[in-house]
Amino acid sequence: VVSWLRDLGTRVEVDRVGNITGTWPPDGFEPAVLVGSHIDSVRAGGRYDGALGVLAGIEVLETLISGGVETARPVAVASFTDEEGSRFPPDMLGSLVAVGGMSLEEALDVTAPDGAVLGDELARIGYSGASPCLLAVAPAAYIELHVEQGPRLEHAGVPIGAVTGVQGISWAEITVSGQANHAGTTPMDLRRDAGHVAASIATYVRTLCDRLGPSQLATVGRIELAPNLVNVVAGSAVLTVDLRNTDDDALAEAERLLAVRCAELAADEHVTITTRTLARYAPVEFDPEAVALVEAVSAGLGLASMRLPSGAGHDAQMLARVCPAGMIFVPSAGGISHNPAEHTDDEYLEAGANVLLRCVLHLAGAVTP
Amino acid sequence: VVSWLRDLGTRVEVDRVGNITGTWPPDGFEPAVLVGSHIDSVRAGGRYDGALGVLAGIEVLETLISGGVETARPVAVASFTDEEGSRFPPDMLGSLVAVGGMSLEEALDVTAPDGAVLGDELARIGYSGASPCLLAVAPAAYIELHVEQGPRLEHAGVPIGAVTGVQGISWAEITVSGQANHAGTTPMDLRRDAGHVAASIATYVRTLCDRLGPSQLATVGRIELAPNLVNVVAGSAVLTVDLRNTDDDALAEAERLLAVRCAELAADEHVTITTRTLARYAPVEFDPEAVALVEAVSAGLGLASMRLPSGAGHDAQMLARVCPAGMIFVPSAGGISHNPAEHTDDEYLEAGANVLLRCVLHLAGAVTP
Repeated sequence: VVSWLRDLGTRVEVDRVGNITGTWPPDGFEPAVLVGSHIDSVRAGGRYDGALGVLAGIEVLETLISGGVETARPVAVASFTDEEGSRFPPDMLGSLVAVGGMSLEEALDVTAPDGAVLGDELARIGYSGASPCLLAVAPAAYIELHVEQGPRLEHAGVPIGAVTGVQGISWAEITVSGQANHAGTTPMDLRRDAGHVAASIATYVRTLCDRLGPSQLATVGRIELAPNLVNVVAGSAVLTVDLRNTDDDALAEAERLLAVRCAELAADEHVTITTRTLARYAPVEFDPEAVALVEAVSAGLGLASMRLPSGAGHDAQMLARVCPAGMIFVPSAGGISHNPAEHTDDEYLEAGANVLLRCVLHLAGAVTP
Repeated sequence: VVSWLRDLGTRVEVDRVGNITGTWPPDGFEPAVLVGSHIDSVRAGGRYDGALGVLAGIEVLETLISGGVETARPVAVASFTDEEGSRFPPDMLGSLVAVGGMSLEEALDVTAPDGAVLGDELARIGYSGASPCLLAVAPAAYIELHVEQGPRLEHAGVPIGAVTGVQGISWAEITVSGQANHAGTTPMDLRRDAGHVAASIATYVRTLCDRLGPSQLATVGRIELAPNLVNVVAGSAVLTVDLRNTDDDALAEAERLLAVRCAELAADEHVTITTRTLARYAPVEFDPEAVALVEAVSAGLGLASMRLPSGAGHDAQMLARVCPAGMIFVPSAGGISHNPAEHTDDEYLEAGANVLLRCVLHLAGAVTP
């Protein structure tokens, strides 16, 4: 990404948390129209999640530059660090730091489950940059193209989503401490089985969704038992709970219900349960003018569009704290994401990139053509 | 162990699956009275499980030798390979091969979850021995001293357990294949969540115990999700189920109920579930004369004893296939085992070793003193 941005002649900057921007023209220091996304992924993830927004942003810049298009405002592409957050929580860490929502010091100290420290890892790969926070001057606007990662556009047969906002998210890491013991000699009623409690929490989150209705999502994606052996009652367990809801009150209720269930399990099963918040973001609504712009541009290109909220978190929700922000979605085949089978047809990629280009031309004030 | 056995002047043999014996006198080739246990452990296990029976056996031999005690039959100590089976299933693999219950070739091909192959690992540590199967000639009898690993002797305030038998055991490895997907964009009703299914199986085994009564034990000690990340619906899961019961029909019913539940979950959650048997042993009853001998010897030493079944599997249950076999239990503090906190008071260790010695003197036909 940095090579391509340099080859285009943009002003490339890397900040201390590894966020990358390329700005055109290189001497443009006024508030820019910013596009972009992220190039990190999850383990065994897909090729589109994040990368599409960065690559399409580079293509927008290349189109402006090669076409000799002048704009009233600079145009910049950003690639934000650690949007997934699956190794270094919270998610959207890079853009969160960029908008002042997390201190640089705190971010660089984040430690992964494997023991790695973010600041050390950035230094190791040469992306502990020299620039101060890249968004010290807020952008004029931010538009992010991304794959939907869900099934709604495909089901509706619509190529473009005008994203209205992002649901709220709550990530917790729950640690259960019981007592390791022999699986053959320990009566069931004398066990302090951390594995049973972890599994009970994991199944409870489904009950929680049933109670709160279809806007509530809940996922236990990580479970680790110790010593994790066939013939040993687990002495400890670590699991994560990912709760999401478009309604912040409902999300808070989900958190409350989970805490109540954990307290019940701790009492009933004679274990101790501790909970650490890994991420907590309220729902975000995007700038109404940005949403309307995506719709209008799509219509102008003869592309059908529909409004929809985002199920996933995105850097755009962080940028929305400091500037008008919006997003463009394109369909995900089968709604599949965070999976190597993630796929978006080329025609939708092209449609999304064209909508992004037209939004930029509008927001940046294209002088020519 | 091998050094100690050599230092005593016994005839030390290591067979091709790593089982070790030391026989006294070294030229005694008639059927021996065999004692012993195992020195392998579980990860983060205790110091007594297995090691006690081997070390006490060595001390019995040392006592016979240093005291100049002659016996009508040879006396031998065995240390059996891989009794725990937590890395290389099934458990009691070494003694199972020794009694002809599993072929040597099959045993050496067993592959661990970490990919290691038993035969290669034995060669690597220098314990792929030259001897053929050590028990080609069945022992005259087998007596094993072991910690109870449960709470019954301590609760009863009794130092010696005369073990009547071993409950049946069924180990299964269950693999769930669903679909990895994004935790924020995938509606709950469209998920094929292998993590949810694994957790549902893990909680179901408790229900199964409630249905079958207190003789039924069930443990899910190992769960592994993939990709095991906070924000990804798990695409696959592997878990183990350890079922035990003193009644073989009840154990078969537990297996049947588990299979029914897995089939229901596969249909309801749109996942595939495959089950691989890691170990399956019917309940075993020890030789009535051996049980009575442990009681009589204890009484002769002024030690209280009680009859009880073993919750754990033991090498003695394999030896029971080929010779009269029995076991001596000593109390486990708090009933805790497979845990670094495993503890047995020195007075009980001494009492158990003395009972073992007297059993051997009786069974081997001590000529003097």
